[in-house]
Formats: sequence, structure tokens, C-alpha cells
Amino acid sequence: MQLTHIEHLGIAVKSLEESIPYYEKMLGLKCYSIEEVKDQKVKTAFFKIGQTKIELLESTDPEGTIAKFIEKRGEGIHHIAFATPSVTECLDELSQKGVQLIDKAPRKGAEGLNIAFLHPKSTHGVLTEVCENPNEK
Amino acid sequence: MQLTHIEHLGIAVKSLEESIPYYEKMLGLKCYSIEEVKDQKVKTAFFKIGQTKIELLESTDPEGTIAKFIEKRGEGIHHIAFATPSVTECLDELSQKGVQLIDKAPRKGAEGLNIAFLHPKSTHGVLTEVCENPNEK
Repeated sequence: MQLTHIEHLGIAVKSLEESIPYYEKMLGLKCYSIEEVKDQKVKTAFFKIGQTKIELLESTDPEGTIAKFIEKRGEGIHHIAFATPSVTECLDELSQKGVQLIDKAPRKGAEGLNIAFLHPKSTHGVLTEVCENPNEK
Repeated sequence: MQLTHIEHLGIAVKSLEESIPYYEKMLGLKCYSIEEVKDQKVKTAFFKIGQTKIELLESTDPEGTIAKFIEKRGEGIHHIAFATPSVTECLDELSQKGVQLIDKAPRKGAEGLNIAFLHPKSTHGVLTEVCENPNEK
């Protein structure tokens, strides 16, 4: 299995409007995109730093996973996403090795990536995503 | 302020011995270093992926911050560390802008880096480190 770099870090926030200024004014990063992912019940804001993106996640639904995460733990890092040339190959290999998968097949995520999540029960508590950029093929 | 990339992600684990095999056998990464940082009451294991390191953190003291973190939240992502050419300049600028600092001056971290932590109260819940590599100067 080939993981090339950390594609993004997902960070749960209560409000994009309140948290974007921290990343821009305090850390000096630039928000280059805001996108709603209806499927995941979130609005996302993206920043780039080196090879990695920071994806802020605001829930659009009080019953959504990000709302529940914040209710339980407060704002904070939600998941880590590794870039791979093939999500399908990753899932096949991880499944064979006994890793519990949340997504058994790739689905569409923000920015048109093909993504899949692994279950934190199998990853020592880290909600882990693998993703591929179909435009890079 | 210049942040160039994500230098590492700190991940709290109960046991290096139990979690290193997940990163090596499941994700295909290689643990290139194990180091004890007595000051922070942790044993660390390092992996590299692209520009970024993954730093697993096991507490060496039941009263240490990593032990307390796991007690409260379970294993998971503990902090994000941004690389910068100058931690001192970062701290000066962030302090002037009203960001609450845990470390008012750089101190030594794992791998000989100069590091400082910002307080999660000022960073929307993300324990954030800035670090510089004195060997790259």
C-alpha cells in the first residue's frame, strides 16, 4: 500500500466565520475555498500549507457527525487524511489485514476526491481517511 | 509570520509497542526513531510521510499530560506542529496579536527541535506547536 503524504487534516469547528480569521490573521494562511458537502452535512473551508491542506468542518445539521463530535469533545482535530494513488487498493489491502472500514468502497468527498474512512477502533483512536485525486491520474 | 509546512502530528497512544505495528504493517510506514523526552514525560516513535512526521506519544508517567489526555479522551491526535524558520519571531507576533501561549520562549523538544506550544483556548481547540530545526540554519 502506498501512502504518499498527508493530504489534509480535518478540524471540527463551531463556526467557519469565527475560525477562518484565526487561520488567516494569526497563522497567516489563506482560505482558498469554501464548499458545502451535503452528503456529510458540513460546510468546509480549505487552507494549504506545504503539501497538506487544513479542512475546517462546520456542521450544517445538529445531528451530523461534526456536531456530535463537538458536543462530546469540543472543537479540535477530527481526522487525518492520507493521499494514495488508489483508494480501492488501499481498502482491499487494509480489509485483508483486518482493519475495520467505515467505507467499504470509495465515495466522493470535498474537492472531488475519492475518499474512504477507516474505523478508529482499528487505528488506535485516530479517525483516518484515505483519498485519491482523480484529476491527478 | 512564516509557517512552511506541517512538521509533525503528535498522536497520543497507550503503548508504542502496540501501536507501532499498526503504522508499520497496516499503513506501510517505517518507524525510524524511538526517543524518550524526559522533560515531557513521554516516549516517542517517529514515522515520516511526505513532508510530515507522525510522532506517537506514550506517557512515562501516569500524571503526565499524555496520560491525562488519554484518560479523558482516549487515544487520538494530540497536537499539530507547524514548521517555521523562527519560533521566537512566531511567538512575538502571536503574542502581540493576542494569542495565548503555553510557552513564552522556545524550549527543546524531540529530535533537537526548538519548540513552543500555543494554548488551545486561542486556537479553536487545536493544541498547536510551532517548531524550528536549528540544524537547518
